[in-house]
Amino acid sequence: MTAGRLAVVLLSGGLDSTTVAAMARAEGYRLLALTIDYNQRHRIELAHAARVAAALGAERHIVLPLDLRGFGGSALTADIDVPKTGVEPGIPVTYVPARNTIFLSVALGWAEAAGARDLFIGVNALDYSGYPDCRPEFIAAFEAMANTATKAGVEGAQFRIHTPLAAMTKADIVAAAVSVGAPMDLTWSCYDPTPAGRPCGACDSCRLRAKGFAEAGVPDPAL
Amino acid sequence: MTAGRLAVVLLSGGLDSTTVAAMARAEGYRLLALTIDYNQRHRIELAHAARVAAALGAERHIVLPLDLRGFGGSALTADIDVPKTGVEPGIPVTYVPARNTIFLSVALGWAEAAGARDLFIGVNALDYSGYPDCRPEFIAAFEAMANTATKAGVEGAQFRIHTPLAAMTKADIVAAAVSVGAPMDLTWSCYDPTPAGRPCGACDSCRLRAKGFAEAGVPDPAL
Repeated sequence: MTAGRLAVVLLSGGLDSTTVAAMARAEGYRLLALTIDYNQRHRIELAHAARVAAALGAERHIVLPLDLRGFGGSALTADIDVPKTGVEPGIPVTYVPARNTIFLSVALGWAEAAGARDLFIGVNALDYSGYPDCRPEFIAAFEAMANTATKAGVEGAQFRIHTPLAAMTKADIVAAAVSVGAPMDLTWSCYDPTPAGRPCGACDSCRLRAKGFAEAGVPDPAL
Repeated sequence: MTAGRLAVVLLSGGLDSTTVAAMARAEGYRLLALTIDYNQRHRIELAHAARVAAALGAERHIVLPLDLRGFGGSALTADIDVPKTGVEPGIPVTYVPARNTIFLSVALGWAEAAGARDLFIGVNALDYSGYPDCRPEFIAAFEAMANTATKAGVEGAQFRIHTPLAAMTKADIVAAAVSVGAPMDLTWSCYDPTPAGRPCGACDSCRLRAKGFAEAGVPDPAL
Protein backbone atom coordinates (compact mmCIF):
# COMPACT_ATOMS: atom_id res chain seq x y z
CA MET A 1 0.00 0.00 0.00
CA THR A 2 2.92 2.39 0.49
CA ALA A 3 3.22 3.03 -3.24
CA GLY A 4 -0.12 4.86 -3.44
CA ARG A 5 -0.77 8.54 -2.95
CA LEU A 6 -1.94 9.89 0.36
CA ALA A 7 -5.53 11.02 0.80
CA VAL A 8 -7.19 12.70 3.75
CA VAL A 9 -10.56 11.07 4.41
CA LEU A 10 -13.14 12.67 6.68
CA LEU A 11 -14.31 9.72 8.75
CA SER A 12 -17.23 10.15 11.12
CA GLY A 13 -17.67 6.46 11.79
CA GLY A 14 -20.97 6.41 9.93
CA LEU A 15 -21.92 4.26 6.98
CA ASP A 16 -21.26 6.91 4.32
CA SER A 17 -17.80 8.02 5.40
CA THR A 18 -16.76 4.43 6.08
CA THR A 19 -17.81 3.47 2.56
CA VAL A 20 -15.90 6.45 1.16
CA ALA A 21 -12.77 5.48 3.07
CA ALA A 22 -13.01 1.90 1.80
CA MET A 23 -13.52 3.21 -1.75
CA ALA A 24 -10.40 5.40 -1.45
CA ARG A 25 -8.44 2.40 -0.19
CA ALA A 26 -9.76 0.31 -3.08
CA GLU A 27 -8.47 3.00 -5.48
CA GLY A 28 -5.00 2.55 -3.97
CA TYR A 29 -4.82 5.61 -1.74
CA ARG A 30 -2.99 5.48 1.57
CA LEU A 31 -5.42 6.79 4.15
CA LEU A 32 -5.05 9.67 6.58
CA ALA A 33 -8.30 9.44 8.51
CA LEU A 34 -9.62 12.59 10.15
CA THR A 35 -12.43 12.55 12.68
CA ILE A 36 -13.72 15.75 14.20
CA ASP A 37 -14.88 15.58 17.79
CA TYR A 38 -17.26 18.54 17.76
CA ASN A 39 -19.03 17.50 20.93
CA GLN A 40 -21.81 16.04 18.87
CA ARG A 41 -24.66 14.44 20.79
CA HIS A 42 -23.82 11.16 19.10
CA ARG A 43 -20.28 10.95 20.49
CA ILE A 44 -20.47 7.19 20.29
CA GLU A 45 -19.54 7.56 16.62
CA LEU A 46 -15.99 8.57 17.63
CA ALA A 47 -15.25 5.08 18.93
CA HIS A 48 -16.71 3.62 15.77
CA ALA A 49 -14.46 5.85 13.65
CA ALA A 50 -11.38 4.54 15.45
CA ARG A 51 -12.40 0.93 14.81
CA VAL A 52 -13.11 1.67 11.15
CA ALA A 53 -9.76 3.46 10.68
CA ALA A 54 -7.93 0.49 12.17
CA ALA A 55 -9.91 -2.01 10.10
CA LEU A 56 -9.08 -0.11 6.90
CA GLY A 57 -5.37 0.12 7.73
CA ALA A 58 -5.24 3.92 7.86
CA GLU A 59 -1.66 5.19 8.19
CA ARG A 60 -2.81 7.73 10.73
CA HIS A 61 -6.07 8.55 12.43
CA ILE A 62 -6.43 11.95 14.05
CA VAL A 63 -9.41 12.70 16.26
CA LEU A 64 -9.42 16.48 16.42
CA PRO A 65 -11.36 18.13 19.24
CA LEU A 66 -13.24 21.15 17.89
CA ASP A 67 -16.01 22.28 20.17
CA LEU A 68 -18.71 24.01 18.15
CA ARG A 69 -21.27 24.00 20.99
CA GLY A 70 -20.40 27.56 21.99
CA PHE A 71 -21.85 28.75 18.69
CA GLY A 72 -25.18 26.96 19.11
CA GLY A 73 -27.63 26.82 16.23
CA SER A 74 -28.03 23.05 15.70
CA ALA A 75 -29.87 20.13 17.24
CA LEU A 76 -26.67 18.10 16.87
CA THR A 77 -24.66 20.36 19.14
CA ALA A 78 -27.18 22.38 21.16
CA ASP A 79 -30.04 21.53 23.44
CA ILE A 80 -32.65 21.27 20.69
CA ASP A 81 -34.66 18.07 20.24
CA VAL A 82 -33.63 15.81 17.37
CA PRO A 83 -36.73 15.33 15.18
CA LYS A 84 -38.21 11.83 15.27
CA THR A 85 -41.27 12.19 13.07
CA GLY A 86 -39.66 11.52 9.70
CA VAL A 87 -37.69 13.37 7.06
CA GLU A 88 -39.26 16.80 6.46
CA PRO A 89 -38.72 19.06 3.47
CA GLY A 90 -36.30 21.98 3.88
CA ILE A 91 -33.07 22.32 5.84
CA PRO A 92 -33.43 20.41 9.13
CA VAL A 93 -32.52 21.54 12.65
CA THR A 94 -29.75 18.95 12.68
CA TYR A 95 -27.86 21.17 10.21
CA VAL A 96 -24.66 22.38 11.92
CA PRO A 97 -23.74 25.83 10.60
CA ALA A 98 -20.87 25.57 8.12
CA ARG A 99 -19.95 22.09 9.36
CA ASN A 100 -18.63 20.65 6.13
CA THR A 101 -16.83 23.91 5.38
CA ILE A 102 -15.07 23.68 8.73
CA PHE A 103 -14.33 19.96 8.38
CA LEU A 104 -12.98 20.28 4.82
CA SER A 105 -10.87 23.28 5.84
CA VAL A 106 -9.23 21.29 8.61
CA ALA A 107 -8.76 18.37 6.22
CA LEU A 108 -7.17 20.77 3.74
CA GLY A 109 -4.71 21.92 6.40
CA TRP A 110 -3.64 18.35 7.13
CA ALA A 111 -3.51 17.48 3.43
CA GLU A 112 -1.24 20.39 2.65
CA ALA A 113 1.05 19.67 5.60
CA ALA A 114 1.25 15.97 4.68
CA GLY A 115 1.74 16.51 0.94
CA ALA A 116 -1.65 14.99 0.09
CA ARG A 117 -3.69 16.53 -2.71
CA ASP A 118 -6.80 14.38 -2.44
CA LEU A 119 -9.59 14.82 0.08
CA PHE A 120 -12.51 12.44 0.42
CA ILE A 121 -15.85 13.30 1.98
CA GLY A 122 -19.04 11.28 2.08
CA VAL A 123 -21.50 13.94 1.07
CA ASN A 124 -24.51 12.89 -0.87
CA ALA A 125 -26.79 15.03 -2.99
CA LEU A 126 -29.80 12.71 -3.11
CA ASP A 127 -30.36 11.55 0.45
CA TYR A 128 -28.62 14.65 1.72
CA SER A 129 -31.34 15.57 4.21
CA GLY A 130 -31.41 19.15 2.93
CA TYR A 131 -27.92 20.20 4.06
CA PRO A 132 -26.60 22.97 1.77
CA ASP A 133 -23.00 21.91 2.32
CA CYS A 134 -23.62 18.51 0.75
CA ARG A 135 -24.44 19.90 -2.71
CA PRO A 136 -22.09 19.64 -5.70
CA GLU A 137 -22.01 23.43 -6.14
CA PHE A 138 -20.64 23.75 -2.61
CA ILE A 139 -17.94 21.15 -3.28
CA ALA A 140 -16.93 22.92 -6.51
CA ALA A 141 -16.72 26.27 -4.72
CA PHE A 142 -14.66 24.74 -1.92
CA GLU A 143 -12.25 23.16 -4.39
CA ALA A 144 -11.78 26.48 -6.19
CA MET A 145 -11.17 28.22 -2.88
CA ALA A 146 -8.69 25.54 -1.73
CA ASN A 147 -6.53 26.08 -4.76
CA THR A 148 -6.19 29.82 -4.04
CA ALA A 149 -5.86 29.34 -0.27
CA THR A 150 -2.76 27.21 -0.07
CA LYS A 151 0.95 27.40 -0.69
CA ALA A 152 0.65 24.16 -2.66
CA GLY A 153 -2.17 25.60 -4.76
CA VAL A 154 -0.21 28.79 -5.49
CA GLU A 155 2.73 26.63 -6.52
CA GLY A 156 0.55 24.78 -9.03
CA ALA A 157 -0.82 21.77 -7.16
CA GLN A 158 -4.47 20.97 -7.64
CA PHE A 159 -6.44 19.86 -4.62
CA ARG A 160 -9.30 17.58 -5.43
CA ILE A 161 -12.35 16.98 -3.26
CA HIS A 162 -13.64 13.49 -4.00
CA THR A 163 -17.32 12.89 -3.34
CA PRO A 164 -17.87 9.37 -4.67
CA LEU A 165 -21.30 9.13 -3.03
CA ALA A 166 -22.59 12.41 -4.49
CA ALA A 167 -25.05 10.86 -6.92
CA MET A 168 -25.85 7.68 -4.99
CA THR A 169 -29.01 6.67 -3.21
CA LYS A 170 -28.58 5.09 0.21
CA ALA A 171 -29.21 1.72 -1.45
CA ASP A 172 -26.40 2.45 -3.94
CA ILE A 173 -24.14 3.28 -1.00
CA VAL A 174 -24.91 -0.02 0.69
CA ALA A 175 -24.15 -1.84 -2.56
CA ALA A 176 -20.88 0.09 -2.97
CA ALA A 177 -19.94 -0.70 0.63
CA VAL A 178 -20.46 -4.39 -0.05
CA SER A 179 -18.41 -4.25 -3.25
CA VAL A 180 -15.34 -2.56 -1.65
CA GLY A 181 -15.57 -4.54 1.58
CA ALA A 182 -16.34 -1.60 3.83
CA PRO A 183 -16.59 -2.70 7.49
CA MET A 184 -20.27 -1.82 7.78
CA ASP A 185 -20.58 -3.80 10.99
CA LEU A 186 -18.35 -1.22 12.71
CA THR A 187 -20.33 1.85 11.64
CA TRP A 188 -22.69 4.07 13.59
CA SER A 189 -25.37 6.34 12.11
CA CYS A 190 -27.87 7.34 14.81
CA TYR A 191 -28.06 11.01 15.85
CA ASP A 192 -29.72 10.27 19.17
CA PRO A 193 -28.67 6.95 20.74
CA THR A 194 -30.75 5.41 23.51
CA PRO A 195 -29.41 5.42 27.08
CA ALA A 196 -28.40 1.80 26.45
CA GLY A 197 -26.24 2.92 23.52
CA ARG A 198 -28.43 1.53 20.74
CA PRO A 199 -29.66 3.37 17.61
CA CYS A 200 -32.98 5.15 18.23
CA GLY A 201 -34.44 3.92 14.95
CA ALA A 202 -36.49 7.09 14.52
CA CYS A 203 -34.14 9.99 13.66
CA ASP A 204 -33.54 11.00 10.02
CA SER A 205 -30.20 9.21 9.98
CA CYS A 206 -31.64 5.92 11.30
CA ARG A 207 -34.54 6.14 8.85
CA LEU A 208 -32.30 6.78 5.83
CA ARG A 209 -29.98 3.96 6.84
CA ALA A 210 -32.81 1.44 7.30
CA LYS A 211 -34.35 2.47 3.98
CA GLY A 212 -30.98 2.03 2.22
CA PHE A 213 -30.36 -1.46 3.55
CA ALA A 214 -33.94 -2.49 2.82
CA GLU A 215 -33.80 -1.22 -0.76
CA ALA A 216 -30.39 -2.84 -1.34
CA GLY A 217 -31.75 -6.11 0.00
CA VAL A 218 -28.87 -6.40 2.45
CA PRO A 219 -29.26 -6.98 6.19
CA ASP A 220 -27.67 -4.26 8.35
CA PRO A 221 -24.67 -6.00 9.97
CA ALA A 222 -24.53 -3.38 12.74
CA LEU A 223 -27.96 -4.30 14.10
CA MET B 1 -24.38 50.04 20.32
CA THR B 2 -27.17 47.42 20.38
CA ALA B 3 -28.80 48.91 17.28
CA GLY B 4 -25.93 47.87 15.00
CA ARG B 5 -25.55 44.61 13.11
CA LEU B 6 -23.48 41.79 14.49
CA ALA B 7 -20.10 41.01 12.98
CA VAL B 8 -17.70 38.16 13.74
CA VAL B 9 -14.17 39.51 13.98
CA LEU B 10 -11.15 37.21 13.96
CA LEU B 11 -9.05 38.64 16.76
CA SER B 12 -5.56 37.29 17.33
CA GLY B 13 -4.53 40.02 19.74
CA GLY B 14 -2.07 41.44 17.22
CA LEU B 15 -1.95 44.95 15.82
CA ASP B 16 -3.75 44.14 12.57
CA SER B 17 -6.74 42.25 13.96
CA THR B 18 -7.10 44.75 16.80
CA THR B 19 -7.21 47.59 14.30
CA VAL B 20 -9.79 45.70 12.22
CA ALA B 21 -11.97 45.10 15.29
CA ALA B 22 -11.77 48.79 16.20
CA MET B 23 -12.67 49.72 12.61
CA ALA B 24 -15.71 47.41 12.70
CA ARG B 25 -16.81 48.98 15.97
CA ALA B 26 -16.33 52.46 14.47
CA GLU B 27 -18.63 51.41 11.60
CA GLY B 28 -21.32 50.59 14.18
CA TYR B 29 -21.05 46.79 14.26
CA ARG B 30 -21.63 44.87 17.47
CA LEU B 31 -18.60 42.64 17.90
CA LEU B 32 -18.43 38.88 18.28
CA ALA B 33 -14.71 38.36 18.78
CA LEU B 34 -13.25 34.99 17.84
CA THR B 35 -9.76 33.92 18.85
CA ILE B 36 -8.36 30.56 17.80
CA ASP B 37 -6.05 28.85 20.23
CA TYR B 38 -4.14 26.68 17.76
CA ASN B 39 -1.29 25.97 20.15
CA GLN B 40 0.75 28.60 18.43
CA ARG B 41 4.24 29.20 19.83
CA HIS B 42 3.23 32.74 20.64
CA ARG B 43 0.40 31.76 23.00
CA ILE B 44 0.90 35.02 24.86
CA GLU B 45 -1.24 36.65 22.16
CA LEU B 46 -4.34 34.87 23.57
CA ALA B 47 -4.22 36.95 26.75
CA HIS B 48 -3.77 40.07 24.66
CA ALA B 49 -6.82 39.16 22.56
CA ALA B 50 -8.95 38.92 25.71
CA ARG B 51 -7.82 42.35 26.86
CA VAL B 52 -8.49 43.84 23.43
CA ALA B 53 -11.97 42.27 23.21
CA ALA B 54 -12.86 43.71 26.61
CA ALA B 55 -11.45 47.13 25.74
CA LEU B 56 -13.51 47.23 22.54
CA GLY B 57 -16.73 46.18 24.30
CA ALA B 58 -17.21 42.95 22.35
CA GLU B 59 -20.59 41.34 23.13
CA ARG B 60 -18.92 37.95 23.29
CA HIS B 61 -15.36 36.69 23.03
CA ILE B 62 -14.84 33.02 22.26
CA VAL B 63 -11.37 31.50 22.51
CA LEU B 64 -11.71 28.28 20.56
CA PRO B 65 -9.12 25.56 21.13
CA LEU B 66 -8.13 24.02 17.79
CA ASP B 67 -4.89 22.12 17.97
CA LEU B 68 -3.23 22.10 14.57
CA ARG B 69 0.11 20.81 15.87
CA GLY B 70 -0.73 17.22 14.96
CA PHE B 71 -0.63 18.19 11.31
CA GLY B 72 2.84 19.80 11.47
CA GLY B 73 4.12 21.78 8.56
CA SER B 74 4.74 25.20 10.07
CA ALA B 75 7.31 27.00 12.22
CA LEU B 76 4.40 28.54 14.13
CA THR B 77 3.05 25.19 15.32
CA ALA B 78 5.86 22.67 14.90
CA ASP B 79 9.41 22.43 16.12
CA ILE B 80 10.96 24.44 13.27
CA ASP B 81 13.02 27.56 14.03
CA VAL B 82 11.31 30.90 13.42
CA PRO B 83 13.52 32.85 10.97
CA LYS B 84 15.31 35.86 12.45
CA THR B 85 17.37 37.12 9.54
CA GLY B 86 14.80 39.33 7.88
CA VAL B 87 11.85 39.02 5.51
CA GLU B 88 12.76 36.69 2.64
CA PRO B 89 10.99 36.39 -0.71
CA GLY B 90 8.55 33.50 -1.17
CA ILE B 91 6.19 31.80 1.23
CA PRO B 92 7.83 31.62 4.68
CA VAL B 93 8.07 28.64 7.05
CA THR B 94 5.76 30.48 9.44
CA TYR B 95 2.92 29.79 6.97
CA VAL B 96 0.38 27.50 8.69
CA PRO B 97 -1.29 25.27 6.08
CA ALA B 98 -4.79 26.56 5.31
CA ARG B 99 -4.86 28.64 8.49
CA ASN B 100 -7.04 31.49 7.29
CA THR B 101 -9.34 29.01 5.53
CA ILE B 102 -9.82 27.17 8.81
CA PHE B 103 -10.23 30.36 10.83
CA LEU B 104 -12.72 31.91 8.41
CA SER B 105 -14.68 28.65 8.25
CA VAL B 106 -15.06 28.58 12.01
CA ALA B 107 -16.00 32.28 11.96
CA LEU B 108 -18.58 31.49 9.28
CA GLY B 109 -20.10 28.80 11.51
CA TRP B 110 -20.46 31.24 14.40
CA ALA B 111 -21.77 33.98 12.10
CA GLU B 112 -24.45 31.76 10.67
CA ALA B 113 -25.51 30.48 14.11
CA ALA B 114 -25.64 34.03 15.51
CA GLY B 115 -27.40 35.58 12.52
CA ALA B 116 -24.38 37.69 11.55
CA ARG B 117 -23.60 38.19 7.87
CA ASP B 118 -20.35 40.14 8.22
CA LEU B 119 -16.94 38.67 8.95
CA PHE B 120 -13.84 40.78 9.52
CA ILE B 121 -10.27 39.56 9.12
CA GLY B 122 -7.04 41.52 9.23
CA VAL B 123 -5.36 40.15 6.14
CA ASN B 124 -3.11 42.42 4.23
CA ALA B 125 -1.93 42.07 0.66
CA LEU B 126 1.10 44.37 0.83
CA ASP B 127 2.96 43.45 3.99
CA TYR B 128 1.45 39.98 3.84
CA SER B 129 4.72 38.14 4.32
CA GLY B 130 3.96 35.87 1.36
CA TYR B 131 0.97 34.00 2.79
CA PRO B 132 -1.33 32.81 -0.02
CA ASP B 133 -4.39 33.01 2.21
CA CYS B 134 -3.97 36.75 2.67
CA ARG B 135 -4.54 37.58 -1.01
CA PRO B 136 -7.72 39.22 -2.35
CA GLU B 137 -8.35 36.30 -4.74
CA PHE B 138 -8.48 33.94 -1.76
CA ILE B 139 -10.94 36.19 0.07
CA ALA B 140 -13.17 36.40 -3.02
CA ALA B 141 -13.10 32.61 -3.44
CA PHE B 142 -13.93 32.10 0.23
CA GLU B 143 -16.86 34.53 0.05
CA ALA B 144 -18.26 32.73 -2.99
CA MET B 145 -17.88 29.40 -1.22
CA ALA B 146 -19.52 30.72 1.97
CA ASN B 147 -22.64 31.71 0.10
CA THR B 148 -23.09 28.19 -1.30
CA ALA B 149 -22.07 26.47 1.96
CA THR B 150 -24.68 27.79 4.33
CA LYS B 151 -28.37 27.58 5.01
CA ALA B 152 -28.42 31.38 5.22
CA GLY B 153 -26.66 31.65 1.86
CA VAL B 154 -29.05 29.20 0.22
CA GLU B 155 -31.93 31.23 1.62
CA GLY B 156 -30.57 34.38 -0.02
CA ALA B 157 -28.33 35.99 2.59
CA GLN B 158 -25.00 37.31 1.43
CA PHE B 159 -22.01 36.76 3.66
CA ARG B 160 -19.37 39.41 3.32
CA ILE B 161 -15.72 39.03 4.28
CA HIS B 162 -14.40 42.46 5.20
CA THR B 163 -10.67 43.00 4.80
CA PRO B 164 -10.24 46.69 5.53
CA LEU B 165 -6.45 46.37 5.73
CA ALA B 166 -6.10 44.60 2.39
CA ALA B 167 -4.45 47.48 0.54
CA MET B 168 -2.71 49.14 3.48
CA THR B 169 0.96 49.36 4.34
CA LYS B 170 1.87 48.71 7.97
CA ALA B 171 2.27 52.47 8.35
CA ASP B 172 -1.28 52.95 7.00
CA ILE B 173 -2.51 50.40 9.55
CA VAL B 174 -0.86 52.28 12.41
CA ALA B 175 -2.47 55.50 11.17
CA ALA B 176 -5.87 53.78 10.90
CA ALA B 177 -5.45 52.34 14.40
CA VAL B 178 -4.81 55.84 15.75
CA SER B 179 -7.84 57.24 13.93
CA VAL B 180 -10.33 54.65 15.26
CA GLY B 181 -8.81 54.53 18.74
CA ALA B 182 -7.62 50.92 18.55
CA PRO B 183 -6.04 49.84 21.87
CA MET B 184 -2.59 49.37 20.35
CA ASP B 185 -1.00 49.28 23.79
CA LEU B 186 -2.77 45.95 24.44
CA THR B 187 -1.60 44.22 21.25
CA TRP B 188 1.04 41.54 20.71
CA SER B 189 2.80 40.76 17.42
CA CYS B 190 5.94 38.70 18.08
CA TYR B 191 6.09 35.12 16.79
CA ASP B 192 8.86 34.07 19.16
CA PRO B 193 8.74 35.83 22.53
CA THR B 194 11.79 35.81 24.79
CA PRO B 195 11.73 33.68 27.97
CA ALA B 196 10.97 36.91 29.84
CA GLY B 197 7.84 37.38 27.70
CA ARG B 198 9.09 40.29 25.61
CA PRO B 199 8.99 40.63 21.80
CA CYS B 200 12.12 39.19 20.17
CA GLY B 201 12.49 42.16 17.83
CA ALA B 202 13.93 39.97 15.07
CA CYS B 203 11.12 37.82 13.61
CA ASP B 204 9.23 38.95 10.49
CA SER B 205 6.29 40.08 12.57
CA CYS B 206 8.42 42.23 14.91
CA ARG B 207 10.26 43.71 11.92
CA LEU B 208 7.09 44.61 10.04
CA ARG B 209 5.56 46.13 13.16
CA ALA B 210 8.61 48.26 13.95
CA LYS B 211 8.82 49.45 10.34
CA GLY B 212 5.13 50.39 10.38
CA PHE B 213 5.37 52.47 13.53
CA ALA B 214 8.58 54.12 12.30
CA GLU B 215 7.09 55.03 8.93
CA ALA B 216 3.87 56.30 10.54
CA GLY B 217 5.95 58.45 12.89
CA VAL B 218 4.11 57.02 15.91
CA PRO B 219 5.82 55.50 18.96
CA ASP B 220 4.78 51.88 19.64
CA PRO B 221 2.70 52.08 22.84
CA ALA B 222 3.25 48.37 23.57
CA LEU B 223 7.02 48.75 23.96
